[in-house]
Amino acid sequence: MKRVNFSDVKITNGFWKQKQELVRSVTVNAVYDRFFETGRFDAFKCDKSNPIKPHIFWDSDVAKWIEGVAYLTKEKREPSLEKIVDDLVDEIEKNQCEDGYFNTFYITVEPENRFKFRDCHELYCLGHLIEAAVAYYEATGKDKLLRLMCKYADLVERAFKIEGSTGFSTPGHEEIELALVRLYECTSEKRYLELSKHFVDKKGSEADPLTAWSEYSYFQSHKPVREQETAEGHAVRAVYLYCAMADLALKYNDDTLKNACKKIFDNISKKRMYITGGIGSSNAGEAFTVDYDLPNLIAYTESCAALGLALFAHRMLLLENDSKYADVVERAIYNGFLSSISLDGKAFFYTNPLEILPYMLTRDTSVKEKNPLHIPNPQRQEVFDCSCCPPNIVRFIPSIANLMYTYDESTIYIHQFMESKASIKIGERVYEIEQKTAYPYDGKISISVKGGAIRVAVRIPYWCESYEGETKNGYAYFDINSTSTDISLDFEMKPRFVYSNPEVLANAGKCAVICGPLVYCMEGHDNEAHLRNIVLDTSSEMHSGYNDKLDSPTILIDAYTKEESNELYSFTKPKYKKIKATLIPYFTFANRGVNEMQVWHLYK
Amino acid sequence: MKRVNFSDVKITNGFWKQKQELVRSVTVNAVYDRFFETGRFDAFKCDKSNPIKPHIFWDSDVAKWIEGVAYLTKEKREPSLEKIVDDLVDEIEKNQCEDGYFNTFYITVEPENRFKFRDCHELYCLGHLIEAAVAYYEATGKDKLLRLMCKYADLVERAFKIEGSTGFSTPGHEEIELALVRLYECTSEKRYLELSKHFVDKKGSEADPLTAWSEYSYFQSHKPVREQETAEGHAVRAVYLYCAMADLALKYNDDTLKNACKKIFDNISKKRMYITGGIGSSNAGEAFTVDYDLPNLIAYTESCAALGLALFAHRMLLLENDSKYADVVERAIYNGFLSSISLDGKAFFYTNPLEILPYMLTRDTSVKEKNPLHIPNPQRQEVFDCSCCPPNIVRFIPSIANLMYTYDESTIYIHQFMESKASIKIGERVYEIEQKTAYPYDGKISISVKGGAIRVAVRIPYWCESYEGETKNGYAYFDINSTSTDISLDFEMKPRFVYSNPEVLANAGKCAVICGPLVYCMEGHDNEAHLRNIVLDTSSEMHSGYNDKLDSPTILIDAYTKEESNELYSFTKPKYKKIKATLIPYFTFANRGVNEMQVWHLYK
Repeated sequence: MKRVNFSDVKITNGFWKQKQELVRSVTVNAVYDRFFETGRFDAFKCDKSNPIKPHIFWDSDVAKWIEGVAYLTKEKREPSLEKIVDDLVDEIEKNQCEDGYFNTFYITVEPENRFKFRDCHELYCLGHLIEAAVAYYEATGKDKLLRLMCKYADLVERAFKIEGSTGFSTPGHEEIELALVRLYECTSEKRYLELSKHFVDKKGSEADPLTAWSEYSYFQSHKPVREQETAEGHAVRAVYLYCAMADLALKYNDDTLKNACKKIFDNISKKRMYITGGIGSSNAGEAFTVDYDLPNLIAYTESCAALGLALFAHRMLLLENDSKYADVVERAIYNGFLSSISLDGKAFFYTNPLEILPYMLTRDTSVKEKNPLHIPNPQRQEVFDCSCCPPNIVRFIPSIANLMYTYDESTIYIHQFMESKASIKIGERVYEIEQKTAYPYDGKISISVKGGAIRVAVRIPYWCESYEGETKNGYAYFDINSTSTDISLDFEMKPRFVYSNPEVLANAGKCAVICGPLVYCMEGHDNEAHLRNIVLDTSSEMHSGYNDKLDSPTILIDAYTKEESNELYSFTKPKYKKIKATLIPYFTFANRGVNEMQVWHLYK
Repeated sequence: MKRVNFSDVKITNGFWKQKQELVRSVTVNAVYDRFFETGRFDAFKCDKSNPIKPHIFWDSDVAKWIEGVAYLTKEKREPSLEKIVDDLVDEIEKNQCEDGYFNTFYITVEPENRFKFRDCHELYCLGHLIEAAVAYYEATGKDKLLRLMCKYADLVERAFKIEGSTGFSTPGHEEIELALVRLYECTSEKRYLELSKHFVDKKGSEADPLTAWSEYSYFQSHKPVREQETAEGHAVRAVYLYCAMADLALKYNDDTLKNACKKIFDNISKKRMYITGGIGSSNAGEAFTVDYDLPNLIAYTESCAALGLALFAHRMLLLENDSKYADVVERAIYNGFLSSISLDGKAFFYTNPLEILPYMLTRDTSVKEKNPLHIPNPQRQEVFDCSCCPPNIVRFIPSIANLMYTYDESTIYIHQFMESKASIKIGERVYEIEQKTAYPYDGKISISVKGGAIRVAVRIPYWCESYEGETKNGYAYFDINSTSTDISLDFEMKPRFVYSNPEVLANAGKCAVICGPLVYCMEGHDNEAHLRNIVLDTSSEMHSGYNDKLDSPTILIDAYTKEESNELYSFTKPKYKKIKATLIPYFTFANRGVNEMQVWHLYK
């Protein structure tokens, strides 16, 4: 199975086109402005007299932004952004050490400590710089950053693999592993692929220094990766590692690695994933916890983790034809990832809770520390100290079409639905595929395939009840030939109630509502009672509405809520009155100021 | 209205007699042993070379233990305990400063800082030492400790009231205010009453130094006490202050103070009190928060705060005839206070949660910090660093009969029901009152009153539906005369469902179960499903059972629970199966190892 790169797919209209235009017109600049203000760009000058000292992860923030610029540029040049990148690359060239080393923090603040501490993000930063370099080269043909990063990667190979002269042996924050695979694909230098495999093979196989506050599982180093069966530790680190494992399983045709990926994926999707595709339920370590631990109010679910889960799940499609992977991609990109950016494109969530009770943030009236429960921020912010998520959005949305297709010699697989035109070259033939759809708000999809006879496999989404044809592993197969070049599908999108496993104690007695790929939630703005008191009537019919302010559909459901009472405790069974509950798409929450929000609702 | 002291009431049998015997035979020694091991007793030697340094609150821990010993001694001498107290008093005499100052921490560790820092518990420690001194004098006639503490109180009066030479003007941790009233009652020295009034009047009236981490409300100093209308700040500090306010309102016939007490009491009992009588819902500051914020899993509800609420509520009965106060006393002593001691009398809760999910304590598998949510300990401990609660139990249970009666010239009020004999002197007459009852497990109460004609007012508990006579402010009145000396009551005790105010979001869709004064809870040990998944059938009949291990009644209720499922999320409405839910008295929970516990349950 092979990938189809986003550069071979043009999103022409509709939902994702709008998001891409927002990133181009607003987000890429908003993130630049905040990064500039906080000194992240100036840091590349490596001026030791600068009173603003870079953080250990700043290089990665900027690198992800560069990668985003590259993807925007690939579709349409952006001279002013390109100038910024070129200037930055010049600074990197100027300040790179003779042996190839480059890291703004270690060069300016702690030169004596380079490659010493496992949890200090050096290789993570390099990973993102490599991804940026490859993307920028592929978008513009400019290879300076690529050459500089190859030189740095060569140093890493020497220091970590050949000489073993470093303070630790595998990265504390994964990312370089998948970046090195990409560097190999771009340069055809097998050494880089082997360096990636070296890091992945070594992880958990021998003791590496441990931090005082974490367990080995935090760094996914609790056992050799091939023996891992559950998703553990820091969720972003984890999914980046799993991406690299899937990449290497494919490149090396490594079944033990593939099986580990399958087990880990199943553990996530069957026991450790929010209905939104969010993962990593705990603030402590920003981490996976134990099976079925999915609290709503304190859900951590970092934006980068949902994004990383989509990357991992899509890679699994290259190893195995099964719609469960693409279903998870869909769940994550439309919900747990997409909630991370405001509708105006300027503000971002680091964490994406599944419930907001605003009063909980200020309940502690007598002490200065108002948030000892680590309840996530109820509003998106323009910038935060640890700003990994905003630039991740900048690189992810312009390249979202990466997730749409895979193919082998005989079949093109359509995993995601977006209004788009793709050119897919198989052997000597080029197939032109055009999708017309109003997804995710309408399940009608028209697909035209030109270029000759081919099989096309279309994912039937997990939420679709209406499709009646034959499927295999969740895909419907269509033969394209001279008389049949069009596929017409209509996945009926109707609101549906979802119930969770009884082991998920946070959702006891509750249900959620989805419509198509979108998870819906209630917000206080649209409902006349405390959301926790609203009891949805699952036997009544649901109706659709529209919210102009959010520019999105809504769902109206018959419901009940408790009547007011003066007594704190009463022997009288509460009286309920009928109300209409209004739900909005989860990704649109928190765009109208702080208010209650809830994904899981009481029902009768 | 006047108090009846516990020393005029002998608890002869039954529930509280058993608890008192447990304190005498086990708890008083268990607490002594732990305090001795931790160096709390040796600290009174004030040996600066002792490597174990006293904490700033250790004096109060030991003082409360002395007070408990005094109460036990009052009923029956305990020579070995008395010897320990006498030796301690000798140490205090030896080490007291010439000017009267005594505090083991400041004498040995920071002599230069005495009376400097408001939050350093010096006056709190003195308050408890005064209470111990009064109690020990009243129990044994030995007045040495009393004289020493009078000397110390005189110094406090000079330094704080006359000279104003201290680093702060009112105590950061209240307690001395109520203790000074007691010292006045014992010595008839009005200066002590006036010093108490001085502290209470000054509180919040002028700026006192503030700690870096707290607001003024933490110390109840956000406004003058007479203007306070809500319960704020550290819950134990708060209720000790409210006790003193009620005492002073009575002594000075001060209506503004009385009205503040009434408003604060109503705020607590109508908006800020758990069904168990626990108060102070937040770990941050061990404090009151906002109205209706009563989360179950993270309930803080310190044992000392429930005890203090009972003391405050009973004092309100001296200001106003209303059974609502005695109902709260009952709620607190049988539930939120009584849960703090294990059935074997050896282990204690500092916090008393209303829900336990054991997995939450170890969910964070990848980091060393396992409890970032401040979820209370699920098991009682033998000792903890801040051991204010265990000695509070030692002094409270032997003096529990303090809460039973009040009287005025014409009427004796019976607030609490315990098998007991009391002698109440009104004018020249002595009335002998005998209660026979198996309370709290049976609502039958026989009361005989001897000594002549008198009115007797008996509280009709808030949970009692069966009483049919006339009542006034919650009391039924009976005329005792030569032909009628017995009162026979039968408050039908049957399990009842309780529902909470819709503003209490933690209890949305849930009910609790009480029977008589006892709140019941479910524990995992007795139930075959996760407690959160159990749905009680409120239309079915409840049955009673018995648990031998806990030596207590149980309640059996028809219920439903979800059948197991393999899917994390499903479109199929969960199937429920019938089960029998078993509930036990709340105060008996956590006596059989760590397991789930829950007070508020889903219902249909």
